[in-house]
Amino acid sequence: MLSRLRDIFIGPPLPTQQSAHEKLNKIRALAAFSPDALSSIAYANQEIYLGLVVAGAAGLNMAWPIGLVIVGLLMIVSLSYFQTLHGYPSGGGSYVVARSNLGTYPGLVAGAALMIDYILNVAVSVTAGVAAIASAFPVLWPHKVTIALGLLVMITLANLRGLRETGTLMSIPVYLFLGTYLLMIAYGLIRLAIEGPSAAVAAPVAIQPLTTLLILHAFSTGCTALTGIESISNGVPSFRPPEARNAGRTLIAMAILMGILFVGSIGLTQFLGVVAGPQETILSALARCLLGSSPAYFIIQASTLLILAVAANTSFAGFPRVAAILAGDGFLPRQLTGLGDRLVFSNGILVLSVVSGILIVAFKGEPHALVPLFAIGAFLAFTLSQAGMVLHWWRERGRNWAVKAVINGVGAVATGSALLVVGVSKFMQGAWITVLFIPLLVFIFIQIRVHYKKVASELTLRGLPPSLKPAPPLRVVIPVSGVHRAMVDAVNFARSISTDVTAVYVELEPGAGEKMCATWQGWWPDVPMVVVPSPYRSIVGPLIKYLDDIDEEHNDGQLAAVILPEFIPAHWWQNLLHNQTAWLLKTALLYRHQRGRQRVIIDIPYHLKQG
Amino acid sequence: MLSRLRDIFIGPPLPTQQSAHEKLNKIRALAAFSPDALSSIAYANQEIYLGLVVAGAAGLNMAWPIGLVIVGLLMIVSLSYFQTLHGYPSGGGSYVVARSNLGTYPGLVAGAALMIDYILNVAVSVTAGVAAIASAFPVLWPHKVTIALGLLVMITLANLRGLRETGTLMSIPVYLFLGTYLLMIAYGLIRLAIEGPSAAVAAPVAIQPLTTLLILHAFSTGCTALTGIESISNGVPSFRPPEARNAGRTLIAMAILMGILFVGSIGLTQFLGVVAGPQETILSALARCLLGSSPAYFIIQASTLLILAVAANTSFAGFPRVAAILAGDGFLPRQLTGLGDRLVFSNGILVLSVVSGILIVAFKGEPHALVPLFAIGAFLAFTLSQAGMVLHWWRERGRNWAVKAVINGVGAVATGSALLVVGVSKFMQGAWITVLFIPLLVFIFIQIRVHYKKVASELTLRGLPPSLKPAPPLRVVIPVSGVHRAMVDAVNFARSISTDVTAVYVELEPGAGEKMCATWQGWWPDVPMVVVPSPYRSIVGPLIKYLDDIDEEHNDGQLAAVILPEFIPAHWWQNLLHNQTAWLLKTALLYRHQRGRQRVIIDIPYHLKQG
Repeated sequence: MLSRLRDIFIGPPLPTQQSAHEKLNKIRALAAFSPDALSSIAYANQEIYLGLVVAGAAGLNMAWPIGLVIVGLLMIVSLSYFQTLHGYPSGGGSYVVARSNLGTYPGLVAGAALMIDYILNVAVSVTAGVAAIASAFPVLWPHKVTIALGLLVMITLANLRGLRETGTLMSIPVYLFLGTYLLMIAYGLIRLAIEGPSAAVAAPVAIQPLTTLLILHAFSTGCTALTGIESISNGVPSFRPPEARNAGRTLIAMAILMGILFVGSIGLTQFLGVVAGPQETILSALARCLLGSSPAYFIIQASTLLILAVAANTSFAGFPRVAAILAGDGFLPRQLTGLGDRLVFSNGILVLSVVSGILIVAFKGEPHALVPLFAIGAFLAFTLSQAGMVLHWWRERGRNWAVKAVINGVGAVATGSALLVVGVSKFMQGAWITVLFIPLLVFIFIQIRVHYKKVASELTLRGLPPSLKPAPPLRVVIPVSGVHRAMVDAVNFARSISTDVTAVYVELEPGAGEKMCATWQGWWPDVPMVVVPSPYRSIVGPLIKYLDDIDEEHNDGQLAAVILPEFIPAHWWQNLLHNQTAWLLKTALLYRHQRGRQRVIIDIPYHLKQG
Repeated sequence: MLSRLRDIFIGPPLPTQQSAHEKLNKIRALAAFSPDALSSIAYANQEIYLGLVVAGAAGLNMAWPIGLVIVGLLMIVSLSYFQTLHGYPSGGGSYVVARSNLGTYPGLVAGAALMIDYILNVAVSVTAGVAAIASAFPVLWPHKVTIALGLLVMITLANLRGLRETGTLMSIPVYLFLGTYLLMIAYGLIRLAIEGPSAAVAAPVAIQPLTTLLILHAFSTGCTALTGIESISNGVPSFRPPEARNAGRTLIAMAILMGILFVGSIGLTQFLGVVAGPQETILSALARCLLGSSPAYFIIQASTLLILAVAANTSFAGFPRVAAILAGDGFLPRQLTGLGDRLVFSNGILVLSVVSGILIVAFKGEPHALVPLFAIGAFLAFTLSQAGMVLHWWRERGRNWAVKAVINGVGAVATGSALLVVGVSKFMQGAWITVLFIPLLVFIFIQIRVHYKKVASELTLRGLPPSLKPAPPLRVVIPVSGVHRAMVDAVNFARSISTDVTAVYVELEPGAGEKMCATWQGWWPDVPMVVVPSPYRSIVGPLIKYLDDIDEEHNDGQLAAVILPEFIPAHWWQNLLHNQTAWLLKTALLYRHQRGRQRVIIDIPYHLKQG
């Protein structure tokens, strides 16, 4: 039943050979990797607007110059990454670049920053998408968190199905978004050319003076527009060959489209004097100003929701990939390296989904509350990656290395400065959370790696001679619950592997032991029975103590094996009707480990046919 | 750490011998078994008031006669149970009496009714207690559910500590309640005698006519006053010897106190013309009318909360006992029969706590919503128990048997009529839930018993000859994850118990098998290795299939054993860093059972010292 449900939602398993076919052409790759970058205009515009509106009309007039600076930054960062993906065609992005050029620690910092950023991208995109659709239908505002979580579940299921199907599914909304927004911006420019700029209908009242700090604030939150640019460089291996060339062209196309959308929308907002009411995003206000409440307006809002949902998907492609690379290097649990049976990194997808779901609930579905946490990670990863590339070119000294190094150097300085601005101006509003979690994650990475190394050195056979001493003779103990058919198998098995077999009965009620001994001797007179009293009515404790005692007593290096006859009911729910003593005993024997004693646990299942 | 927390909250284990000392004297027994009955005045009064107030002043004038009828019923039921506990001094109450006299099915119905009633008593008492204290401090109203759950947790912990300590803990509030209420009623009677009866200050407006149906409604909810009377007859073995005599005297004392409190409070309410506002109980209104907002008023409200909290405790003594008796007869899971290490039925206590907690949340902490479910169970158990006693006396025909039979007969008829009234008049408001769950529980009881009987007949050795055929020769399979130290122990053990050992490697990546084979042969050239390809990257599936295949191939009755080398990390959280393959494999081998094949599972733990 469970596996049938799984097949419906996630699809049947795919064999490993099919792996090679799961590659993307440029059209699909743009749809799979660009939505994060493209859609950021939704929340970046919103944050710039919210940052400036407190300074009234004078503040809002700063939107256009801030937008231009951010687009400049966008161009620098894109060019840097264009170089990166040619330098590292096997993918891995910031983490790989920083680690191989700057060393392990900067690499881990970049990896941690990137992972946090992927998680926040999901949370911010999903909640901003819900804000877009709730702007069109205000009745949805109170249900933001529920809708966001529903969306998250849908995206998770789509990703568990696999990358290619995801690509197909995601292409439509991406191109719908591009089409509708480009048309709207074109229409807006024509109207602007005919009618000329206009002041806001109801110019907002300034409640703060327009200070440099305020402008920096608005700029730093606007920088979230740049998040997501690096995802193509992480995903180079997903492109059809020639991978690097196709990825590079896709990156350039994406950066140009992004620039047009961003300057276009921010310029129109300012020069048409658009102002948003409560419970409405600024992009929704712009669309309503241009299109009224026509069907076109609703299509714009729906496509904003869709692109943001798909943007969350960028993380679902990127996060599991980075996690798998880190896990492969021993910095994260091994379970994250394995391809699931649909040829995707299922465990990474699930981790991402759960953590971002928690963030959505904790921040009550408010993108504005999540954004201050967001840009830190992206800009830290950008800076480390660009700095690493400078060293990379310098070491390689290939053709035109100096030009390449300068381009990446400018990128590193630009993103580093933006990082400082963001970190300082948004520290108290939530950036501190990210600042705290990045070193914490790095610390965990290192601890995990230390653990794996210690385990490997403990387990290695290097240095052991191939001729090994034979296993010591075996002492077998059978805990007895009663005389029944399962016991027959257990005693027979015990006698077939050892000549030293003892039955042990834990006596819960005084006197029961004597009775049991008599019955036992009737069936197996050659197997001695020991009765262990249990004044506190526990079975496990006295039994473990008995085993410790006889080990102590003999102290002969003999291995002790415990044979557990275990009933398996015909149906799982029938387990509720039986004491789980065998299970408790197994767990205790496995984990209550004393003084280097090794105990073999032999489980002899007896399958009940009915009942 | 966990066990230290446990010691603080629940106390260290108690040995079985101490069991005999855990007996109660009459003073303590009254405190342990009576609060349910005594405290019912809190919600019974409230329900009568809410039932009548809709008919205005004319309706409220019916409170006094209804109160008198209920007290009459109380006397009849008490007398009946006085006889019952002498007839059945070993305890067990309604279930035992009905089962032994009327047969299994009526007994099970009584048992089910009683269990449901115990659960509802907890939910109603706790929520009514919170209503009492929230009447004094209206700021607490919105937090009713949270406070009720907090109270429930405290009561549960107290009960897990053990009966005697519970008795001590509970004596103070019970006698505080009795003292304060008796004083208040005495003071009220004196005032009434001096000032004479008065009409309500603000007589409520009638919104319904005073019909017979309305009076029956009020009467039926008022009958909740009687719940809890039977608890003493279930708990006879907890009394100091002579058990039956002491229990009988305690029962009579309780019935008299209850009668005084109930008629006293209901009479004063009516003749002083007390009317309750919103967010206030009628008992709180009565106390405020008599005492104003003096400290005495707050003491009355606090003692009402306390007695109701202690009333919930009656269920914690009674429910686990009834569950243990039913489980002993095979109608409930065996785990409910065992005394925990504090000499209380810990599992029963936990079940009661969880189920009543769910009810409190589901009914939003409203006693008024829970009461309609409540009385059905109690009255059904009363009726069956009284009817059973009539047959009991008739069969025994001892001294005065006819008188005794008549007393119990009158009890049966009276409680049976009340049952009908309650069931019909409150069916739609919630009584249907209880009416539905009683037969459902009986059905589950019977299914459980059938299961245990089938299992016992499958496992019995009766009919098997004492000489048994020896175990067939052993085939051993070792699933291989890699060549490491844990594998050394596994191979040594395998060779010590069998000559037919095969290593199996599940190949996740094409080509890995060949490499593994080469390494393996270097260490254990005498143990053949089989490589099983896994195109879908699952380890468990192909391995199980391989085992099935070789069983099929040989089909020689040979037993197959699977040896699992399993790493045990030094700290539990390190399990997160290792694939849980051994665990998955064990579970699959235990539960994926095919065509009667039995597989022995041999677990060889390898304890990591560090990492």
